[in-house]
Amino acid sequence: MPVKSPVLVDLKFTPEAIAAALKTAFADRGSINLADPANKGADLSQVDYALLWKPEADLFQRAPNLKVIFSGGAGVDSMLNIPGLPDIPIVRFVDRSLTVRMTEWVVLQCLMHLRDVFGHFRHQRKRVWGHLPAPEAREVTVGVMGLGILGLDAAAKLKVMGFNVIGWSRQKKHIDGMETFDASELDAFLARTDILVGLLPLTPETTGLYNGSLFSRLRRGGALGKPVFINAGRGKSQVQADIVSAIETGVLGGASLDVFDVEPLPMDDPLWGLENVVITPHDAAVSEEHSLMRHIEEQIARFERGEPLQYLVDRSRGY
Amino acid sequence: MPVKSPVLVDLKFTPEAIAAALKTAFADRGSINLADPANKGADLSQVDYALLWKPEADLFQRAPNLKVIFSGGAGVDSMLNIPGLPDIPIVRFVDRSLTVRMTEWVVLQCLMHLRDVFGHFRHQRKRVWGHLPAPEAREVTVGVMGLGILGLDAAAKLKVMGFNVIGWSRQKKHIDGMETFDASELDAFLARTDILVGLLPLTPETTGLYNGSLFSRLRRGGALGKPVFINAGRGKSQVQADIVSAIETGVLGGASLDVFDVEPLPMDDPLWGLENVVITPHDAAVSEEHSLMRHIEEQIARFERGEPLQYLVDRSRGY
Repeated sequence: MPVKSPVLVDLKFTPEAIAAALKTAFADRGSINLADPANKGADLSQVDYALLWKPEADLFQRAPNLKVIFSGGAGVDSMLNIPGLPDIPIVRFVDRSLTVRMTEWVVLQCLMHLRDVFGHFRHQRKRVWGHLPAPEAREVTVGVMGLGILGLDAAAKLKVMGFNVIGWSRQKKHIDGMETFDASELDAFLARTDILVGLLPLTPETTGLYNGSLFSRLRRGGALGKPVFINAGRGKSQVQADIVSAIETGVLGGASLDVFDVEPLPMDDPLWGLENVVITPHDAAVSEEHSLMRHIEEQIARFERGEPLQYLVDRSRGY
Repeated sequence: MPVKSPVLVDLKFTPEAIAAALKTAFADRGSINLADPANKGADLSQVDYALLWKPEADLFQRAPNLKVIFSGGAGVDSMLNIPGLPDIPIVRFVDRSLTVRMTEWVVLQCLMHLRDVFGHFRHQRKRVWGHLPAPEAREVTVGVMGLGILGLDAAAKLKVMGFNVIGWSRQKKHIDGMETFDASELDAFLARTDILVGLLPLTPETTGLYNGSLFSRLRRGGALGKPVFINAGRGKSQVQADIVSAIETGVLGGASLDVFDVEPLPMDDPLWGLENVVITPHDAAVSEEHSLMRHIEEQIARFERGEPLQYLVDRSRGY
């Protein structure tokens, strides 16, 4: 039996966590972790599989015989833009835990805006005892943009919490118990939406999609008074200057952002200081290293048994 | 057919909201709202039904022929302490909307502690981009004390959000899919609990129950590091000085309180200024006036058809 080639790993995540996870992962074949200085000049020419997130520029030259690329994250927009990306299968990371944690964040943000946590904190800081009556969740419509694995999980749990939930995707999806809209019905979808939840991949069509024009088409005068924008998809889908101006002029009543055009968000960005805006540092749902390694072990095993790979990226769609 | 007696209303809620709800409620019999100065000296001697929340001291003298008392709230501890309370049925207010909104608040608080909203807000105020890794909900055990209508609804939705949920009630309750504990098993329950959610009625047994001794028996070193205390039941079930000291000494890692020993919470109370403590002004789930009136119309109709009243208070238990 030929020796199995080690898995090439080049992940720009927390190096300690990756190193710890690699200690027990890929027991039958080992790994070459490029974050380890000992591997600086390692021969990668015989490597079959690479686990990558923002890899080194010369990686595909050094490893010209890759059979499969595994993305370290759910989104692959950065992967698809790498010069010299070979024409081999790319597998996205689909992670039960990542999905669950993303939904925790989305439900948390929706509840924070529903129950005016910001107003309550302002009262608390001033030691003011003042009722802030809130609508019930079912009086508020959450519009979820993006009905992949993340969007569907968030939608289902938002419904359990009582929200009225509608969904939008580029192509029409028929989903039990949820009214859905497609690309041609965007205006109708926005006109019904009190809280917009963005869980879209980054593609040419979604770049700059969340802009002032879109915000102005959201429902006004719903149970929350003003619409709210929540984005946990990709930062480049939003026009940040438009978010600032929409909050300042009252077109939006609040926002929760986990992703940004430039990350880390620069210290002088006006988003940091806006009222009713939550900024989290792209940690709504980080890839958990052990889950990531198990997922890749499973996919390599499938591939080597001759079964089809799962969660393949469709390059023509961009995700 | 005899004329139906109007419903006596003495609710110390927002007077405008009550007056508005009474405009359309009890269409067949009318009401006597004691908040209306016109009813100051009204003859109440022939009144059958009273809807009360913290009523006037002489009310039962003025209305000696009541057949049923309806509580304006879910808790009846204040009602049971009224001198001269007649020995007639007391109906609690059980309100779908109140239950749903209470669960919104409980889930919101659990998610805020799970995802360290406080740490994120501290970072945001300083414009610091810093990941704050959080455990996944299923690594955290929420222990719900009180398995009535509110406790069961909160437990079910916390489970959907992924939390590991266990329950405690004075007498053992067998509930599908949830491990439960009774009075004799309190220590075992606490030793498993990372986030304690209090939804107990106020009785002699629950007065002062949440004290330093109890906090010290909660699980330490769970996924959140330190345990968290959440109370949306009754303020007199908690020893507030013990909460302050438990937070200050790190016995508790955080708290969310909607109820207090004295309400409004006095401005000089140290609870207002503690880190990782959420103070809300007893507005987790306020009774919605229209729901309240519909609930009472239904119960009066049942009573007059000779059917048993629902949601009767058991005076021996105190709730």
